[in-house]
Amino acid sequence: MTVTVWKYPKRDEWKVIMARPQMDLISLSRTVSDILESVRCEGDDALRRYEKQFDRVVLDALQVTPAEMEEGIAAVPESLKKAIRQAIDNIRKFHASQAIEVKKVETTPGVWCWQKPVGIEKVGLYVPGGTAPLFSTVLMLAVPARLAGCHEIVMCTPPGKEGKIAPAILYAARETGIDRIFKLGGVQAIGAMAFGTESVPQVYKIFGPGNRYVMAAKQQVSVQGVAIDMPAGPSEVMIVADSGADVRFLAADFLSQAEHGADSQSILLTTDRRIADLFPAEIERQLDRLPRREWVEKSLSHSSVVLLERETDLADFVNAYAPEHLIVHRTDAEEWASAIVNAGSVFLGYYTPESAGDYASGTNHTLPTSGYAKSYSGVNLDSFTRKITFQQISSEGLKNLGPVIEKMAEAERLEAHKEAVTVRLQSIHS
Amino acid sequence: MTVTVWKYPKRDEWKVIMARPQMDLISLSRTVSDILESVRCEGDDALRRYEKQFDRVVLDALQVTPAEMEEGIAAVPESLKKAIRQAIDNIRKFHASQAIEVKKVETTPGVWCWQKPVGIEKVGLYVPGGTAPLFSTVLMLAVPARLAGCHEIVMCTPPGKEGKIAPAILYAARETGIDRIFKLGGVQAIGAMAFGTESVPQVYKIFGPGNRYVMAAKQQVSVQGVAIDMPAGPSEVMIVADSGADVRFLAADFLSQAEHGADSQSILLTTDRRIADLFPAEIERQLDRLPRREWVEKSLSHSSVVLLERETDLADFVNAYAPEHLIVHRTDAEEWASAIVNAGSVFLGYYTPESAGDYASGTNHTLPTSGYAKSYSGVNLDSFTRKITFQQISSEGLKNLGPVIEKMAEAERLEAHKEAVTVRLQSIHS
Repeated sequence: MTVTVWKYPKRDEWKVIMARPQMDLISLSRTVSDILESVRCEGDDALRRYEKQFDRVVLDALQVTPAEMEEGIAAVPESLKKAIRQAIDNIRKFHASQAIEVKKVETTPGVWCWQKPVGIEKVGLYVPGGTAPLFSTVLMLAVPARLAGCHEIVMCTPPGKEGKIAPAILYAARETGIDRIFKLGGVQAIGAMAFGTESVPQVYKIFGPGNRYVMAAKQQVSVQGVAIDMPAGPSEVMIVADSGADVRFLAADFLSQAEHGADSQSILLTTDRRIADLFPAEIERQLDRLPRREWVEKSLSHSSVVLLERETDLADFVNAYAPEHLIVHRTDAEEWASAIVNAGSVFLGYYTPESAGDYASGTNHTLPTSGYAKSYSGVNLDSFTRKITFQQISSEGLKNLGPVIEKMAEAERLEAHKEAVTVRLQSIHS
Repeated sequence: MTVTVWKYPKRDEWKVIMARPQMDLISLSRTVSDILESVRCEGDDALRRYEKQFDRVVLDALQVTPAEMEEGIAAVPESLKKAIRQAIDNIRKFHASQAIEVKKVETTPGVWCWQKPVGIEKVGLYVPGGTAPLFSTVLMLAVPARLAGCHEIVMCTPPGKEGKIAPAILYAARETGIDRIFKLGGVQAIGAMAFGTESVPQVYKIFGPGNRYVMAAKQQVSVQGVAIDMPAGPSEVMIVADSGADVRFLAADFLSQAEHGADSQSILLTTDRRIADLFPAEIERQLDRLPRREWVEKSLSHSSVVLLERETDLADFVNAYAPEHLIVHRTDAEEWASAIVNAGSVFLGYYTPESAGDYASGTNHTLPTSGYAKSYSGVNLDSFTRKITFQQISSEGLKNLGPVIEKMAEAERLEAHKEAVTVRLQSIHS
């Protein structure tokens, strides 16, 4: 297993190198819509049926009980609890810094405008199950939700075969103030939060990663009235290295992305021939030490090293790809990164691994993949709020601005719009 | 034609009163997807074919030429030009006030995080045609796009039967710095910007209102890789009146919403019986003066007046409906409105008609309808940016935070994530 190395590819070859592993959501479309429809019509009965079918567990109550919560939390080692609390502190600090203050602007004398951020009242968080308990996702979604002032925060996550939720997830949920946790995974979980059932409340926006069934379900409900955080695809990293980069760090970052799943993608960019030459052997060396070797190798099959000719090619390549994660192994990292306009999250310098942002530095790890960084932000405090605009106009203000409004409304042939101003101006003048 | 008056409805009747005119996008689904697919495969040829079919115009060049631009601009009266410039000034002031400054946060000693707003590189603005030239929409979309630093701003708007674009639209486009204007309407315009053709560049995000075909098209392309501003339905207003409200102002505001289209909805809420009693006759009186009477009457058929019992019912009713526009005719407007959590844009006080925000006060008029105010903001500066997160960690910072990351990665069984930290810590310590 060797990583593909592209040496000095021409610009018209870039597209091929940048091709992402395809994710076919269309073929799932019917399966997903059938499950969603059953959940909508049958509620909890459908949820229990699908949990039995897909998660192989027979559930009575869907909601985690206080006793289960206590039992789970007691099972988390104190050292992990402490680490989780430190991560929460950092995530909270960074997301709290994103709060905006209300600024009232007098656009015309007597005409005041402002916007006020208000938390989305009901949000649903999806935390995937699978081979490991992804409690870090709980932190990344629940901390900003709580900061934003969302009133009701519910979470769905698939139970294990014994019908239980992983202790670390329960601890993370309690520490971040999640109101209710439901033992639900996959499409049925998304349907439950989108439509509401006897047990699960309907929410206004659904957040969180998942496999392609979950993504397809989120996409489908997003055109049926419920908002979603963003579309999503397989995770990816782009790494840029200068001649001072440590090949061991590069390989470790490259592999940590590959470990996410068989469809993950890692791309290393450099103009340094020595780095490109040394890199494949270092990957081999580190690969030997990893437990998920088979999985990682699949991911490596669509990963690559790209040796570029010009320094200026680097930022062009990054911006064209629009990576979810960008790690900049350069001495001039911050300055160089000022040219980056398309990326989800950027990690600057030799000592800033992606893992830091995945867990504990404070930034969010729910980020746009598949080139969506060209149009979407990652999850942040904004994602959990709406900005309502307000305006207040005094009679003096309407005297100043009214004629402009009347002129424009008239030109758009909206007579009643004009009249709403005229009737007031007449009253002021009379 | 009389507006329905609900007197002291019970809470379980509220849902009926709040029912919005249904908009069926599903039945259009096939027609829309066929047009989109043709545009994707055949490019400009398909665009010309659909323009002939739907807008009844045979086009050679799709893009507005500099000569057409000059000719159009010359035809706009100076008084209207001046009004448009004043509106642009206000919209620019208010949207510029929404810019956030980059704040670097040290979450742990040596660990710095920040987010940087970056304009979406390529955006497409859709401006509907129809009975009147809606140049105000040009201002509402192009001003924030320019402020956000979007590199390429293209606009599509349907031509009239002579193959021309309304002069006021051309003037608004030039004043706001739109790069290119295409004579394209409907589904084909959305397809052109979503996929790109020989003439029309592909964009990353599409903004703007439209009829239900346009909305269905935006919805479809939104799950095919291009972002959209928000889902949309018919326009609506909710008006809250206290006993001091002027019934003439109330009726004028009510009717100005009704004039938007046959499926618009206006709802007046009050606890004052006198207002509720006087209102229908005032509507009749003002209706007589309006040119679009037939249209307005259709809209009135699903509009209503609701007399509520308790003061506290008012905000509950508003928040449950989540109106696009909320006009608060109360002496204590601002204080009262602090209880509002679901609304697009709020107009405070007796002298603040919705028309002000529709045109010239500075706030945006592209707002969430159909209850989407529960989860979406209106268009604002943010809508044209992404926030990229950055982090930089010093070797000292990694010594501080590294063990937390290692502990969490280990608990999620992501060994390579842990290793990316460990390999660096070893290097620091060696």
